[in-house]
Amino acid sequence: MSTFDEHHHIENDPSYKGLKVNKGVESVPTVNPDAAKRFLKKKKPRLAIDDYVKGILDGNVTVLSQAVTMVESSKPDHQEIAQQIIEKCLPYAGKSIRLGITGVPGAGKSTFIESMGMHIIRNGGKLAVLAIDPSSERSKGSILGDKTRMEKLSGESNAYIRPSPSAGSLGGVARKTRETIILCEAAGFDTIFIETVGVGQSETAVHSMVDFFLLLMLAGAGDELQGIKRGIMEMADAITINKADGSNKERANLAQAEYRSALHLFPPTKSGWTPEVKTCSSLYHEGIAEIWDMVQEYVELTKNNNYFEANRRSQAKYWMYESINEQLRNHFYQREEIKSGLELNEKLVLNDEKSSFMAAKDLLDKYFKNIK
Amino acid sequence: MSTFDEHHHIENDPSYKGLKVNKGVESVPTVNPDAAKRFLKKKKPRLAIDDYVKGILDGNVTVLSQAVTMVESSKPDHQEIAQQIIEKCLPYAGKSIRLGITGVPGAGKSTFIESMGMHIIRNGGKLAVLAIDPSSERSKGSILGDKTRMEKLSGESNAYIRPSPSAGSLGGVARKTRETIILCEAAGFDTIFIETVGVGQSETAVHSMVDFFLLLMLAGAGDELQGIKRGIMEMADAITINKADGSNKERANLAQAEYRSALHLFPPTKSGWTPEVKTCSSLYHEGIAEIWDMVQEYVELTKNNNYFEANRRSQAKYWMYESINEQLRNHFYQREEIKSGLELNEKLVLNDEKSSFMAAKDLLDKYFKNIK
Repeated sequence: MSTFDEHHHIENDPSYKGLKVNKGVESVPTVNPDAAKRFLKKKKPRLAIDDYVKGILDGNVTVLSQAVTMVESSKPDHQEIAQQIIEKCLPYAGKSIRLGITGVPGAGKSTFIESMGMHIIRNGGKLAVLAIDPSSERSKGSILGDKTRMEKLSGESNAYIRPSPSAGSLGGVARKTRETIILCEAAGFDTIFIETVGVGQSETAVHSMVDFFLLLMLAGAGDELQGIKRGIMEMADAITINKADGSNKERANLAQAEYRSALHLFPPTKSGWTPEVKTCSSLYHEGIAEIWDMVQEYVELTKNNNYFEANRRSQAKYWMYESINEQLRNHFYQREEIKSGLELNEKLVLNDEKSSFMAAKDLLDKYFKNIK
Repeated sequence: MSTFDEHHHIENDPSYKGLKVNKGVESVPTVNPDAAKRFLKKKKPRLAIDDYVKGILDGNVTVLSQAVTMVESSKPDHQEIAQQIIEKCLPYAGKSIRLGITGVPGAGKSTFIESMGMHIIRNGGKLAVLAIDPSSERSKGSILGDKTRMEKLSGESNAYIRPSPSAGSLGGVARKTRETIILCEAAGFDTIFIETVGVGQSETAVHSMVDFFLLLMLAGAGDELQGIKRGIMEMADAITINKADGSNKERANLAQAEYRSALHLFPPTKSGWTPEVKTCSSLYHEGIAEIWDMVQEYVELTKNNNYFEANRRSQAKYWMYESINEQLRNHFYQREEIKSGLELNEKLVLNDEKSSFMAAKDLLDKYFKNIK
């Protein structure tokens, strides 16, 4: 204050040649009003819903990414924006081939996706690569976060690579991925890959959102199979023995023959398609074109016998019911009265002191008495 | 009235030698009070809870059947009695081998069960045969209702055959069967068969309540497989090619070899058991003893590596959560506000006019606003 007064005093001196300092106002605003205005504007979405939609329909990948970020956000206002975008994109979605790709770590999924992806792009396709990996602790980034995994593909303007949504419940991650498919399709991507690691619960989720499900394997069925979950083989529309190159080629052919004879014992699929076994070398780009041709054949067959469309519709229905069931469960298990009783009831059940159904009933009684 | 008065009059005549008729009371009760008492008593359970439990523990099959009827009843008071009986039987249950048997109609399940069952009984075992067949319209009676199907077995005092509970939701039928297992075990049955038709949704349910899951097949993998659901083969602890007799024997051996090489490509089971493929002729009782020996081997292996007990515990837990989830769903879908909105939302989803998740959200919002 003394300094101010000093200046003030000096200023009034006619001989003063220094900077003119205006008299201060009584209450100085603590925040610059212009900056505040700009700041508040930034908190709002940078784009209006229609701008998002237009950007997506124009194939603008930056806008697409921003919309996907909204889809993945857990904030309610972001979610509302996301739902509005999705709603407006829905009529433009659906016109793609959705391919699920699974296999244990080490089966060579990234190299396969890169090789197959480049093949598709060279043939004029537009490819989006998504992933479901709810268990990943390497998020935000997940299994696909490391862009160096698909160096060539990530440099292509007709490829869009998006890592798995951050770790969360499988239901949540699956929902986000399924909504991202819609946005990618509306943005003009005609091929969607959804990658997953074939060791957890996510294969059923992926299987329920794709047209074709491909299981990537290695030759020498034995140790390599240790990780694969039982039941996945019977979901596959095709098994591909990867790394069929060099000294491994013979073993791959043998494995192919074995899997072929195994698959013919399986019950027929609902699609009318007979699951095939192929070999390929993603590293040397051998057999890749044949696999893509096979997928095209599948699409042609199932579009002709109407399974393709019927399956899409039943998937949409499945996700509606699945989403309802998941949220009913979430609501239940998050209630305080349930949290407090769950552990004890589980313990009683495990010790054969209470029947599973009585334990369930006791918990449900607590829950339902709060419903009008 | 005139007749009565007449008699009355006559009676007072000293010369009257006929039957003496007492003077009537003013208000004749319309129901005999003694009969009413007996009738009301009949409406109550004939046995007290402890009588049920004692009867079951004594191995009284009549009492067991009455208790199972309570389990299967949908009346709330019967359900309460059932739960109390189960609770008291739980400490005595669990000491059996639970075997799931599935296969398409025509695979010869009844003949197999009869042949295997007689083998078990001849070796001193006590066998209960239950079934899960929620789809059956032939109830009450279901696939096992026709006792002639297992003529020999049903005449044995150490065999207890109980048809599938009447048609209802799979969850409901599964619950009833699982509770019936407990009662049968408490009654001293050391082997429980649970039969199901391998074409529906019930195999997963059966698989989740048994120690060993056996898939019954026929030779000539082709047409016979049409009915089997995909995914069942990977659940099986053993595949048995039935009807391996006469001119069919060679084909059965061929099928056995094929399935063996197919199964070795499957991922290993959690139990440490390698699924086997056997042949048998239920009609000529060939190969039956070998299959039973295999089941014993499995039990020995898994009791030694603790999988047996761990699996039982995880099944009990599974059923607690499954029961909760089922009843949450039932409650939701039975609400008026949901019933009225469900069809429209499903239609919008199927026509790509609304996203699966938005439809789910709109329905859930209606539901949750009624919860305190």
